[in-house]
Amino acid sequence: MNAFTYYNPTRIEFGRDKENNIGQMIAEQGVKKLLIVYGTGSIKKNGLYNRVIESLKSAGIAYEELDGVVSNPLLSRVQDGIDLVKSHNLQAVLGVGGGSVVDSAKAIAAGALYSGNVWDFFIQKASITAALPVYTIMTLAATASEMNGNSVVMNDTTHQKYSIASVLVNPKISIINPELMMSVPPEYLAYSATDIIAHTIEVYFTATDHPHFQSRLVESIIKTVIETTEILLKDPLNYDARAEFAWASTQALNGLTNSGTGGGNFPNHMIEHALSALFNIAHGAGLSIVIPAWMKWYKAKNTPQFERFAKEVFALDTADEGIAALEQWFRSIKTPTTLAEADIPRERIAEIAENAHGLAVLWGMGETYSAATIAEILQNG
Amino acid sequence: MNAFTYYNPTRIEFGRDKENNIGQMIAEQGVKKLLIVYGTGSIKKNGLYNRVIESLKSAGIAYEELDGVVSNPLLSRVQDGIDLVKSHNLQAVLGVGGGSVVDSAKAIAAGALYSGNVWDFFIQKASITAALPVYTIMTLAATASEMNGNSVVMNDTTHQKYSIASVLVNPKISIINPELMMSVPPEYLAYSATDIIAHTIEVYFTATDHPHFQSRLVESIIKTVIETTEILLKDPLNYDARAEFAWASTQALNGLTNSGTGGGNFPNHMIEHALSALFNIAHGAGLSIVIPAWMKWYKAKNTPQFERFAKEVFALDTADEGIAALEQWFRSIKTPTTLAEADIPRERIAEIAENAHGLAVLWGMGETYSAATIAEILQNG
Repeated sequence: MNAFTYYNPTRIEFGRDKENNIGQMIAEQGVKKLLIVYGTGSIKKNGLYNRVIESLKSAGIAYEELDGVVSNPLLSRVQDGIDLVKSHNLQAVLGVGGGSVVDSAKAIAAGALYSGNVWDFFIQKASITAALPVYTIMTLAATASEMNGNSVVMNDTTHQKYSIASVLVNPKISIINPELMMSVPPEYLAYSATDIIAHTIEVYFTATDHPHFQSRLVESIIKTVIETTEILLKDPLNYDARAEFAWASTQALNGLTNSGTGGGNFPNHMIEHALSALFNIAHGAGLSIVIPAWMKWYKAKNTPQFERFAKEVFALDTADEGIAALEQWFRSIKTPTTLAEADIPRERIAEIAENAHGLAVLWGMGETYSAATIAEILQNG
Repeated sequence: MNAFTYYNPTRIEFGRDKENNIGQMIAEQGVKKLLIVYGTGSIKKNGLYNRVIESLKSAGIAYEELDGVVSNPLLSRVQDGIDLVKSHNLQAVLGVGGGSVVDSAKAIAAGALYSGNVWDFFIQKASITAALPVYTIMTLAATASEMNGNSVVMNDTTHQKYSIASVLVNPKISIINPELMMSVPPEYLAYSATDIIAHTIEVYFTATDHPHFQSRLVESIIKTVIETTEILLKDPLNYDARAEFAWASTQALNGLTNSGTGGGNFPNHMIEHALSALFNIAHGAGLSIVIPAWMKWYKAKNTPQFERFAKEVFALDTADEGIAALEQWFRSIKTPTTLAEADIPRERIAEIAENAHGLAVLWGMGETYSAATIAEILQNG
């Protein structure tokens, strides 16, 4: 087991109606005016927006608004948010939405206290040394952004989908109310399930060490995600399944499963970021294409762990059977497993691989993942 | 799944040699003089004391010392620590040892900022509203005190072993170096294993709700504890087994496994606290007597979860088989499972039950656990 630091100071408020007290919770931390960040309007249709505003007002918190955050959130909109914070001298950022909204809120929180361009953080030209406090109300369970310091943003000029990681942008408080997630459409539920599984298996397979305890935590998450996804596809209003799905999602990328594993990396995310940067497909849809392709390429490098995966998750024997079972499960929940299903032309594989390789270099995987190797993996997709 | 708040701001520094930087880590938080709390001298024999002092000195941190903390730590010694902190105007408390040392450090940290008697917190006459920062270097894995806000202290006047719980005394930083635990004698390893298992199964069996995900986390911890205990009894210097044992121990009582379960309580701990208050036996030794006795009494109240336990942990079918397997496992690691083995006379069961009932009332279980019921449970032991 490798050395590690685990530090996750986010407070989770989990359960029905928790968002109705968001104003008071934030006011207790001394915040008097903040920026609300949200997406393309669903929170206005379903009444969440009004409840949040009412809670803020009754707690005496003033606010400005940044709407229009989209999936694969754009750097330009993050910059708009930073400008709003600076011009109104706001003290905090409240994201109400899914991972894209919260990731944007984090980037705004860091960029607001930086004199340069916030993109500097993403290309590792500068390090985050301070950030405004971030608060979240989650409407989608997938990214675990509610309990980590990660933010993924898409540079709409360069078509690079890059990320930052700093405990300084860990949300101070995150509201997880499973009822707010009941309207997530089935295809996004499937993409989310894929994303959660991806968060756990990246390190599960690529780590330099595989403590049994950490492997058991990963398998607990995957089994829960499979079980609850199948329940929710039939019964979207099942509160307990939504709740377990959401909490497993949070645990999948809050630092817990990776602690002590040492040296794991995120090749599937790296390749997927190129897919969604170039084709603007949903992150989870990209992942369900990349994962089986990558697993087939990678399996020989860590056969014992692939056999363990097959046995513990699917009660099967061989690495190949485990991979086939996961791929089949992706198909069963109707998330794509081939480039063709996502209308991505095979003749663009070289271009995708080149884009992904840029990220591989930045994430320290440049030698293992040359553009040629990434192209070879994508040929499996 | 029930509503919950999860908030655990402790930073864990896990791995070899981490304690050698404790001075710098604490200095970075602005602390200039603190109280070191430790036990009966083993840290002086093995060199840990010298390394800690050297690290503090090189970081420019002044210190006072409180030694002589014993298992089932005494309120009188906590009061000595509070007096030292107040008279020297110390800014923090550093516990170097096992759960008793760290629990004492927490009680000192809370008591130092309180004008009344610190025992007021334990009998719920007062609430903790402020505490000095607590730091820990763990030499025993069992209590998870390194990552929670719990402290159990024994009032040496009234013979009450009572507890407090407040995030204000969660350690700011805890060092977990598995190498520091390699000298733990086999009987204390066994007691620790019992304690860890107790931390998870209390709520696993008594909760009002049993989300599968939370049950899986508990089973992951128990399976890891069983596996690594067996390795360590044969091979005490096995670093990876020490590490997994330690990390599973931390996860067993840091709030994670209980989140969302709602309404669980700690009857085995309640009864055991009376045992060790009256007979000064090791906490884990008391638990391995109480747990099978309690399980036999409680099983009919939650048969499905007992069947699940039998199946997932021991690959057995019935509740009775699961209980017998756990009891047998306790015997195999040589921790007592009967009162007789711990030289506790059966004629004192009524007295133990009366003492335990006092705690049951304080913990909100007074109606379920009358003295007569507790005596009935202990008759199984």
